Amino acid sequence: MKRTEIKTVGEFGLIEKLTSGIETVNASTFKGVGDDCAVLGIGSTKTLVTTDLLLEGIHFDLTYTPLRHLGYKAVAVNVSDVVAMNGKAEQITVAIGVSKRFSVEMLEELYDGIYLACAEFGVDLIGGDTSASMTGLTLCITCIGSAEEEKITCRSGAKYTDLVCVSGNIGAAYMGLQLLEREKLVFQGNEAEAQPDFDGYDYILERFLKPSPRVDIVKQLENAGIVPTSMIDISDGLSSELIHICKQSKVGCRVYEERLPIDYQTAKMAEELNMNLTTVAINGGEDYELLFTVPLSMHDKVLELDDVKIIGHIAEEHHGLYLVTRGDNEIEIMAQGWNALKE
Amino acid sequence: MKRTEIKTVGEFGLIEKLTSGIETVNASTFKGVGDDCAVLGIGSTKTLVTTDLLLEGIHFDLTYTPLRHLGYKAVAVNVSDVVAMNGKAEQITVAIGVSKRFSVEMLEELYDGIYLACAEFGVDLIGGDTSASMTGLTLCITCIGSAEEEKITCRSGAKYTDLVCVSGNIGAAYMGLQLLEREKLVFQGNEAEAQPDFDGYDYILERFLKPSPRVDIVKQLENAGIVPTSMIDISDGLSSELIHICKQSKVGCRVYEERLPIDYQTAKMAEELNMNLTTVAINGGEDYELLFTVPLSMHDKVLELDDVKIIGHIAEEHHGLYLVTRGDNEIEIMAQGWNALKE
Repeated sequence: MKRTEIKTVGEFGLIEKLTSGIETVNASTFKGVGDDCAVLGIGSTKTLVTTDLLLEGIHFDLTYTPLRHLGYKAVAVNVSDVVAMNGKAEQITVAIGVSKRFSVEMLEELYDGIYLACAEFGVDLIGGDTSASMTGLTLCITCIGSAEEEKITCRSGAKYTDLVCVSGNIGAAYMGLQLLEREKLVFQGNEAEAQPDFDGYDYILERFLKPSPRVDIVKQLENAGIVPTSMIDISDGLSSELIHICKQSKVGCRVYEERLPIDYQTAKMAEELNMNLTTVAINGGEDYELLFTVPLSMHDKVLELDDVKIIGHIAEEHHGLYLVTRGDNEIEIMAQGWNALKE
Repeated sequence: MKRTEIKTVGEFGLIEKLTSGIETVNASTFKGVGDDCAVLGIGSTKTLVTTDLLLEGIHFDLTYTPLRHLGYKAVAVNVSDVVAMNGKAEQITVAIGVSKRFSVEMLEELYDGIYLACAEFGVDLIGGDTSASMTGLTLCITCIGSAEEEKITCRSGAKYTDLVCVSGNIGAAYMGLQLLEREKLVFQGNEAEAQPDFDGYDYILERFLKPSPRVDIVKQLENAGIVPTSMIDISDGLSSELIHICKQSKVGCRVYEERLPIDYQTAKMAEELNMNLTTVAINGGEDYELLFTVPLSMHDKVLELDDVKIIGHIAEEHHGLYLVTRGDNEIEIMAQGWNALKE
């Protein structure tokens, strides 16, 4: 049999290969593969479904991730996908595989975090699966939510002249991860004496370890009467998500370096690690902020939103996707975000 | 921290520990943890949700499981859970984690099997997740279906004097697995010359490698106007499933050894392997047949069903759960089925 390495096609290439040509047969399948959630249901109230697989050694490192935080985060990232469709998360299923390294008490900690997130986001745990595993911890969460059909925001609705908006700030979770990785290396070389030094970096650590899906932004949009033309959550990095929206909406974009929202701790950490701050901001993943587009006519309404920033505008498709630097250069936006299938 | 080994509490003990005391908050959560599916929705048409995690080395062995069969089976076992609620499966999400051992072509084979099952059971693939893994193949499928509220069959509805019924035959998949394991051992000891000897055992092999959820039985029940008082699919073995139904329905049961439906190849293989056939039939898992109870008044209607056998009746709770042997002895039914968390 021919053998094509997965890394040569990448995650999105693989998904494309495995899911192109799907034809759905059920009337209740409203929208399938290709967005933050699938959309189901026949009436005007739609059901949203999303699923995320989290594997030890790939998605999380238990040497610095407390199990409680892992449980919380696993729920949060799924809720974030429902939020990105402008929906309300309502239920989750939790499937876990555990090796003998794990005790009942450790799983109770994991579930403490899961239930904490459930309580915070108003989500019910409704089912799951529990199994042994050969190595490490496997978590698969499926989240189910709902939204009125006319309010659902897909990746494909961005239009020429729309404003490009981002909630909160970006690059923070990635800097939190880099800090944890650095302290892990220090600790491993010197276990007897080393104490991790997280002084002054509590915010970026929390951004990585305990991300918050922006349920509040969806509520603000609702109150302001704004339905974004497109929306996605920033899990793989701003550049990767911009590409998703532009590709699926068949448009281009201009995003301005000077407008990227960046926290002070993110900037400080990038400097300390000698990393380019703009690169960190556009390629760092796991912030779970919302990237969305609104019609230009909504400009004044958007300015009144709390913790939302306009970072650019949608261009015509043939104008491509570019970051406009402070020096007025245009740099093409390419996906450099996290990709679990690269080496 | 205290350390309790998971094997000391077992799968169901662990689930109990992790999910007892759940209180749901959403109106759309109709029925949560504790059955083959969760039940969601506000109107009379309910949404059914089930999830299954399949891990290489635990749930499947790729030395004798073709990837196409694995994909097919992964869908089939989820559809079976929806069928066990008397529902119709409509959508699945597929999350996979793959190590570098796997090529694009291998995953295409896996998906061929997934799509084959989707086509056969009228299910739409609507989403998923794709990731690298450190070791082996991880599959997590979530299946979504629907059923009218008054037709949903839970594990908790069996009543004293109800008839206990089983579709098809049992123990076959377990004998198929034993045959594959035997041939694997032969092959490993003698790779140059050994050819697996599956002559005359095609049926039990197919039962293990390509199980069929009994969609046809649900249709027959519908046509006959029968709504079972309880139903479950036989994934862990008849005895384990009987215990689920009796415990959740707060009843006992009597099941008759002479009435257990067993295929000729199952009996022949058990004899060849020197295994007790009744033990194989009541403890062998993965047949994905349906175990259900119906009121005694339905006796004549049940006799007219194709491929369904009455194997016993529901007793009062204090009478316990017993298998009545051919020699008229009563043997207590205890869960000896497959348990992925035992050593």
